[in-house]
Amino acid sequence: MPNAVCLLSGGLDSTTTLAVARRQGYDCYALSFDYGQRHAVELKAAQRVAAAMGAAEHKIARIDLRLFGGSALTSAIDVPKRRAPEQMAAGIPVTYVPARNTIFLSFALAYAEVAQSSDIFLGVNAVDYSGYPDCRPEFIEAFEHLANVATKAAVEGSRIKIHTPLIHLSKAEIIRLANELSVDFSLTHSCYDPDPEGRPCGACDSCLIRLTGFRVAGITDPLPYRK
Amino acid sequence: MPNAVCLLSGGLDSTTTLAVARRQGYDCYALSFDYGQRHAVELKAAQRVAAAMGAAEHKIARIDLRLFGGSALTSAIDVPKRRAPEQMAAGIPVTYVPARNTIFLSFALAYAEVAQSSDIFLGVNAVDYSGYPDCRPEFIEAFEHLANVATKAAVEGSRIKIHTPLIHLSKAEIIRLANELSVDFSLTHSCYDPDPEGRPCGACDSCLIRLTGFRVAGITDPLPYRK
Repeated sequence: MPNAVCLLSGGLDSTTTLAVARRQGYDCYALSFDYGQRHAVELKAAQRVAAAMGAAEHKIARIDLRLFGGSALTSAIDVPKRRAPEQMAAGIPVTYVPARNTIFLSFALAYAEVAQSSDIFLGVNAVDYSGYPDCRPEFIEAFEHLANVATKAAVEGSRIKIHTPLIHLSKAEIIRLANELSVDFSLTHSCYDPDPEGRPCGACDSCLIRLTGFRVAGITDPLPYRK
Repeated sequence: MPNAVCLLSGGLDSTTTLAVARRQGYDCYALSFDYGQRHAVELKAAQRVAAAMGAAEHKIARIDLRLFGGSALTSAIDVPKRRAPEQMAAGIPVTYVPARNTIFLSFALAYAEVAQSSDIFLGVNAVDYSGYPDCRPEFIEAFEHLANVATKAAVEGSRIKIHTPLIHLSKAEIIRLANELSVDFSLTHSCYDPDPEGRPCGACDSCLIRLTGFRVAGITDPLPYRK
């Protein structure tokens, strides 16, 4: 079985991506980040998901992105609520975390080199997403090119591939795919602003995109929304 | 004054690079990493250097690269000593840290975005160096390309430039440049394997390259080598 590093936030997209990698036959080395996010409860979801899906290993890297701030997810800026789809489409929101996926992928690259893996899976999505620049195909292509000149493994002939199986799917398509792969949706966490018990708000962009996706897919979201 | 993010290990090369950035008129936001390196004493050097050179700000990011290991600098692998130049030239040594400069630059990119900077300075060198893949011009070019599709700032039109003023200089040329820029060499630290008091070993690749550079430059290295 080849090894793959799978970035795993504990959300719907990264969980589905891990399920895809497992179905493709990879031994999966899951990697999550305790980065000072206000929704650190997602790390518990990541642990549940990694265990349920039989990840070979699950590491949680601690990196304090509050050191830089600049995002509603890592500083005192409020998470926007109840935005209409047109508002969401109007620009990059304050939940954008500077260089987050660049940082996450750079750690995944280190992990891949140590785990002797040439494959990194990432659950980015460029259709029903929040407009983040580091979820776009051109970003992924640029990182893959970088990865192939950055490491000892690359110099020695290993060719890194960044897999983004969800990048061209809508949220409803992702949910249908997850359903086919028997993903247990109740293990996942998507909300940016959960209450202290970890219950999703149902009103942030991430909850709204998720809820719309489930509705369009005709599947019930089992999460215990706050209202 | 434009702002620049300057990666600062506290070694000779990053210190000289910071001096170049200061001379070019940048307000410098210095960034160091407490990454689990065995030579964590270099962080004290970085603090001394940042203060002496009037950095506008100095942040130390804590990221535990021991999580992955795979290097003599972050695990129990011995640091090689007394290697001849031919041995050093023969391949990538065990002091290579998987994806280290990719990780460091990704944090610099986050810092640059928050500090509203389009300029990142990095003291890599592809002449008298240890053969690390992430010190080569093709790596820097690939990262610069990535940076320009990765961030909100890039999407909004800011163009990131990665400055590597030392990349084509020999170690002796770097030392002469540092001397012209009045760098206080006694503040810097280069050794991979210092003793508990922080004194350099004089025998690891980094010490040997440094000592040869000073000898060729005809300048005395003020550091208190162990023997």
